[in-house]
Amino acid sequence: MEQENKEKRAVVLLSGGMDSAVCLAIARREGFICYSLAFDYGQRHRIELEMAQRQAQAQKVRAHLEIKVGLGAIGASALTADIPVPKHDSAGSIPNTYVPGRNTIFLSIGLALLEAKQASDLFIGANQVDFSGYPDCRGAYLEAYQSMARLATRAGIEGNPLSIRAPLLDMDKGQIVRTGLGLGVDFGHTHTCYDPSPAGLSCGLCPSCRLRLQGFAAAGTPDPLPYLQSE
Amino acid sequence: MEQENKEKRAVVLLSGGMDSAVCLAIARREGFICYSLAFDYGQRHRIELEMAQRQAQAQKVRAHLEIKVGLGAIGASALTADIPVPKHDSAGSIPNTYVPGRNTIFLSIGLALLEAKQASDLFIGANQVDFSGYPDCRGAYLEAYQSMARLATRAGIEGNPLSIRAPLLDMDKGQIVRTGLGLGVDFGHTHTCYDPSPAGLSCGLCPSCRLRLQGFAAAGTPDPLPYLQSE
Repeated sequence: MEQENKEKRAVVLLSGGMDSAVCLAIARREGFICYSLAFDYGQRHRIELEMAQRQAQAQKVRAHLEIKVGLGAIGASALTADIPVPKHDSAGSIPNTYVPGRNTIFLSIGLALLEAKQASDLFIGANQVDFSGYPDCRGAYLEAYQSMARLATRAGIEGNPLSIRAPLLDMDKGQIVRTGLGLGVDFGHTHTCYDPSPAGLSCGLCPSCRLRLQGFAAAGTPDPLPYLQSE
Repeated sequence: MEQENKEKRAVVLLSGGMDSAVCLAIARREGFICYSLAFDYGQRHRIELEMAQRQAQAQKVRAHLEIKVGLGAIGASALTADIPVPKHDSAGSIPNTYVPGRNTIFLSIGLALLEAKQASDLFIGANQVDFSGYPDCRGAYLEAYQSMARLATRAGIEGNPLSIRAPLLDMDKGQIVRTGLGLGVDFGHTHTCYDPSPAGLSCGLCPSCRLRLQGFAAAGTPDPLPYLQSE
């Protein structure tokens, strides 16, 4: 039983992308036994879930869970004609790609798994450098989430430690690539492209691919992913 | 457009039970246009979702959404043999019926719908009188949730009001019944029983039925639900 009590457990949210793969590697370096969690929420590209699963395997998590969340109905309703959607095109505003409540929902399901597994730390690959306009990628939000989570849970009430961890919060893409390479992350098994080919090949030209390629360029190393095209 | 801006919109979480039905009636009395939200999370009794739908219709919400959330995998994993689950039988502890993270998950999906519908208030039928041991039914938790929610959302960042509302928080079952009757809630279309018959009839003897029947007794009015048995 003593060994049970000493075991450090964490839940890590995995999206199939680079950031969460590096986040998992950081959690493992800290000595956590990891439970990884991916969400099937109606995203367009099934390959994201496959890559999450591959990262989980390669990085030897104790268990990988894939949870279905039917957010399609909500996403669609934001675009219905009866509700006027304000335009936010000016600098400093929230990008149109922002999905209402997504990180809050994912963290909350992670929190349930944390309680079920008696884990102490919940890791998310949130980053406020590249996604500075997203309300739910900011440090102040994550701190407020942690305060809430401590009140929401048995662990928090009983005085056990509970931390929301976002180790990539202030890294740029180059730092994320370097950190991941240093920890042995196989970036060939991550998916980034907004618009992959039917076979899952990255386009190399969409904003998401460009940001990724800039990250590898900044880190001075080639991206192991094959691309359909690149500039 | 002026009328659009003046319209007060709320999201109301509906479970099919008494409390959330009364909560919806309170939101409507306050003049809110309501969007109701129920969750198909693998609960044993489909009748809960049917009753949520009936309440939504009877109380004339603008739209009722039912969202699937695959919590089964997490719930089951709490009971797996490899993790020791501590016993909490002493007074003042958290009951065994507590489901990790449930209210936090439901509120978070409600928050997504609130943003999508440009609503300002998110109602939940949480109650800390009958469920005093649940961490996520306490006022302090709900206040922390509201602080987090204001940072999580476009609405919060842009300075629009956003409130988490739990109008039943300090009511006992008798007060909830009286309030609901005063607002015309049809309690015949709510479900409470933990152990209904295959046809959906309430047992009348489980702790949940007993609490409900005590509420009607305290309010001095008969429960319109038919029961298989009662004492």
